[in-house]
Amino acid sequence: MLAAVLLPFLCCLSSAAAGKLLVIPMEGSHWLSMKAVLAELSRRGHEIIVIAPESRMLVDSSAMYTLKTYPVPFKKEELQELMHSLALDTFSEKPFLFRFLNTWENFRKSSAIFKATCESLLYNKEVMKYIEESKFDAILTDPLTPCGQIIALHFSIPTVFFLRGVPCAIDVHAAQSPDPPSYVPRVFSLYTDHMTFPQRVKNLLISISEPFLCSTVFSSFESLASDFLQKPMTITQLLSHGSIWLKRIDFVFDYPVPVMPNMIFIGGVNCGQKKPLSQEFEAIVNASGEHGIVVFSLGSMVSEIPMKKAIEITEALGSVPQTVLWRYTGEVPPNLPKNIKLVKWLPQNDLLAHPKTRAFITHGGSHGVYEAICNAVPMVLMPLFGDQMDNAKRIETRGAGLTLNILEMTSKDISDALHAVINDKKYKENIKRLSDLHLDRPIHPLDLAVHWVEFVMRHKGAPHLRPAAHELNWIQYHSLDVIAFLLAVVLLSMFISLKCCLFCCRRCFRKKGRASKPTKSKSH
Amino acid sequence: MLAAVLLPFLCCLSSAAAGKLLVIPMEGSHWLSMKAVLAELSRRGHEIIVIAPESRMLVDSSAMYTLKTYPVPFKKEELQELMHSLALDTFSEKPFLFRFLNTWENFRKSSAIFKATCESLLYNKEVMKYIEESKFDAILTDPLTPCGQIIALHFSIPTVFFLRGVPCAIDVHAAQSPDPPSYVPRVFSLYTDHMTFPQRVKNLLISISEPFLCSTVFSSFESLASDFLQKPMTITQLLSHGSIWLKRIDFVFDYPVPVMPNMIFIGGVNCGQKKPLSQEFEAIVNASGEHGIVVFSLGSMVSEIPMKKAIEITEALGSVPQTVLWRYTGEVPPNLPKNIKLVKWLPQNDLLAHPKTRAFITHGGSHGVYEAICNAVPMVLMPLFGDQMDNAKRIETRGAGLTLNILEMTSKDISDALHAVINDKKYKENIKRLSDLHLDRPIHPLDLAVHWVEFVMRHKGAPHLRPAAHELNWIQYHSLDVIAFLLAVVLLSMFISLKCCLFCCRRCFRKKGRASKPTKSKSH
Repeated sequence: MLAAVLLPFLCCLSSAAAGKLLVIPMEGSHWLSMKAVLAELSRRGHEIIVIAPESRMLVDSSAMYTLKTYPVPFKKEELQELMHSLALDTFSEKPFLFRFLNTWENFRKSSAIFKATCESLLYNKEVMKYIEESKFDAILTDPLTPCGQIIALHFSIPTVFFLRGVPCAIDVHAAQSPDPPSYVPRVFSLYTDHMTFPQRVKNLLISISEPFLCSTVFSSFESLASDFLQKPMTITQLLSHGSIWLKRIDFVFDYPVPVMPNMIFIGGVNCGQKKPLSQEFEAIVNASGEHGIVVFSLGSMVSEIPMKKAIEITEALGSVPQTVLWRYTGEVPPNLPKNIKLVKWLPQNDLLAHPKTRAFITHGGSHGVYEAICNAVPMVLMPLFGDQMDNAKRIETRGAGLTLNILEMTSKDISDALHAVINDKKYKENIKRLSDLHLDRPIHPLDLAVHWVEFVMRHKGAPHLRPAAHELNWIQYHSLDVIAFLLAVVLLSMFISLKCCLFCCRRCFRKKGRASKPTKSKSH
Repeated sequence: MLAAVLLPFLCCLSSAAAGKLLVIPMEGSHWLSMKAVLAELSRRGHEIIVIAPESRMLVDSSAMYTLKTYPVPFKKEELQELMHSLALDTFSEKPFLFRFLNTWENFRKSSAIFKATCESLLYNKEVMKYIEESKFDAILTDPLTPCGQIIALHFSIPTVFFLRGVPCAIDVHAAQSPDPPSYVPRVFSLYTDHMTFPQRVKNLLISISEPFLCSTVFSSFESLASDFLQKPMTITQLLSHGSIWLKRIDFVFDYPVPVMPNMIFIGGVNCGQKKPLSQEFEAIVNASGEHGIVVFSLGSMVSEIPMKKAIEITEALGSVPQTVLWRYTGEVPPNLPKNIKLVKWLPQNDLLAHPKTRAFITHGGSHGVYEAICNAVPMVLMPLFGDQMDNAKRIETRGAGLTLNILEMTSKDISDALHAVINDKKYKENIKRLSDLHLDRPIHPLDLAVHWVEFVMRHKGAPHLRPAAHELNWIQYHSLDVIAFLLAVVLLSMFISLKCCLFCCRRCFRKKGRASKPTKSKSH
């Protein structure tokens, strides 16, 4: 039966007509998991064109796709400087106001860079002519910057979104997915799906304030989209045209909430097949003895930290019997003990998959967390920015790791946390349980992602999955017009009934009055 | 890559530890698609025990599972008589009030039978002892009668629900899935997901009335469950404990609406691999020539119809050049032409899959409709009862078939409709488009169903997919307490501010007054 059932699937996988896919990616770690999907799509014979700015960081050229670039009014060094500054900010121990202003300034700069990138693409006649003439079957894009969707709307090409989420739950609203603030914690709230009354109050207040907050963040894109498409367009309206939302979410890690049929969950897509370690790493791991190793990385964007913090961390890591493999490109701390091996790059997933790996010290980026879940490695989390605090909270509440405050943690805190997740069996048991649930799936998330990209290419979208809610405004969606009408009918009926009653009563009394008067006159 | 990715899946499929599954099925066509899932589960080595009443209709014994029966206070003949009466009612041309009373009476009788069946099971000491001692890993049940869930709660066994839906959207509410009446048409409303204002008014009114309507329908089960479990229990609370909802829904046919992560969509699960026709049917199909055949069945529960209607239908079918294969066990109509072949049973899916099949005349049961979609055969729909009117409406609005009113249709209506769906290309094109979308899926619904039953057996449920909304009451879920609190704070703040202002003003005026008085006195 299995063979019979798989046959059409396998047959369909091999006989699928090759299509033409335009990819407008997002910079940074977002690109890494998207690239895994492109590799598989390329292997299946599709023609893939990646369009990226000339000044970029991780988006690289490859034999799997054609990389087309366009000039932008900033240099790669400026980008790197901005990233460096963002990373350093998180370690800053200056007063809150100073840090806030610094973060705001960096944020303003990144927004300006994202907008300038998009503007450079939209108004690059050569690239736009190329896109128009290429007759792409679909666009695969990260909607965190909605440039891909602006192009998609302009040329009427269906889009597949590839994302974890968009700030202020814009993705959720754009997909018309209900999002009750009573049990769906808002990003940055650090709440779980079980909230106390005061937490629910704060969660609702965050929820109400989100549209205002995010209109500031996305207003430049909204005006860009409106100018380019020559019609007023909010960011939510823009993203509402996506055919399929490939969400890097799994409910083992994220909380179960209402979803829509065109949301496909591919959390763990980046956790691929384990590859053998290189000789260099194999030697380090083998030399670690019975205590095994600890993998330590603060993500692809943060490879060095202030020396004071580095010394504190080094001191803590020196106190554990495990060998620590630390991805670190900064100045070597003077107190570096023998059990710490500093490396410029490490094969994170393959190391986490190694049976000798005891723990993972991570900033809590979703990619790393999914690799740790996939390989059942307990975590010590040092969240830095973005959604990392929320990710750390999720792992901690599930008993699969411990969170440290990067600014306040002492050397003892770090070694205590590491000691706990390695030696207290409950952390390993919990992450193993999460891992078992996560890996017990009918199809690998990578194949799921590939299927839905191909689906959109084959059928020119997925209109049958588009909810009719898109045709309703806010008042109609919540049936407020219907409720107002029914209330009006009820009130009007009550008013008329009351009037009728009063009228009847008056008539009755008047009649009685009239009837009694003659009697009176007669009696007189 | 594909092999690498499929390998763990295939490996997992074959190495899965065999489990012990209790099945408490629903009678009628519901059983047929559940049986397909049981066949696959049995093939994969699981021990399956089906518990069904001694008096039953379609639930049969098989080598794939052990059938255990229990006595019930009614006979099989009574069941058959009830079904016969239900079917005849739909053809009745008596006045509305008479038909309504008849339907109500039949409905009362079926409710009583369902309740008696459940009661006989729950209070059968021998069977209950058997269930307790058997240590089942999971229960697979159709929640249309919640008997399986009562047993599951009693013995703390996780449940997998297998269903298309429960009246009054009880399944949707029990799963905590949002269900906005602004674009989710209610069952029996015959609306689509695009509603006019008056339709939205009616849809909301149906939605409001549903809890009252269904409390009548399910009250006997609620009191049975409350008595047996010794705590008050509504039907929604009872079903809220299901681990996984296997819903026989596909968004090619049903409208896209909000869903929950523990809902798995297996619409088309009954449309299996095409098997070769028997010699008898092969001969009929081959003899049909270039015009091909029409398949005609009113479902497993209706195999005969009143003679007057049969003659009308026969007259219509005699006028088409196709050979009509009609599943019919009633008295042979006197005007039976040569192109109509009456059969007591037909291999519906295999016939629909035959390239010579031009159209399908159906009552619009979801099983038949999915087989028609799967095999891309346009339909003439003659809905009789239940959700069949809504199913017919969906197919008609998608341009893949035509609906006839079984009471009002004339011979000409039937032949016109049949002629249209066969000869007007748009019907074939539309059903082909639906079929292509439906069949383009990453995994067959049967494998998906099997995976999730096994998942629940392996992990003793799916607690990570259970939304926290279950812990909230209606007021909390809709944040009404939070909104009331915030309103109170705002009003109180306004009140205090107003009071302060008034106080200040009064003080000011009083001071002014006092200040002016001495002046006055001085001036005097």
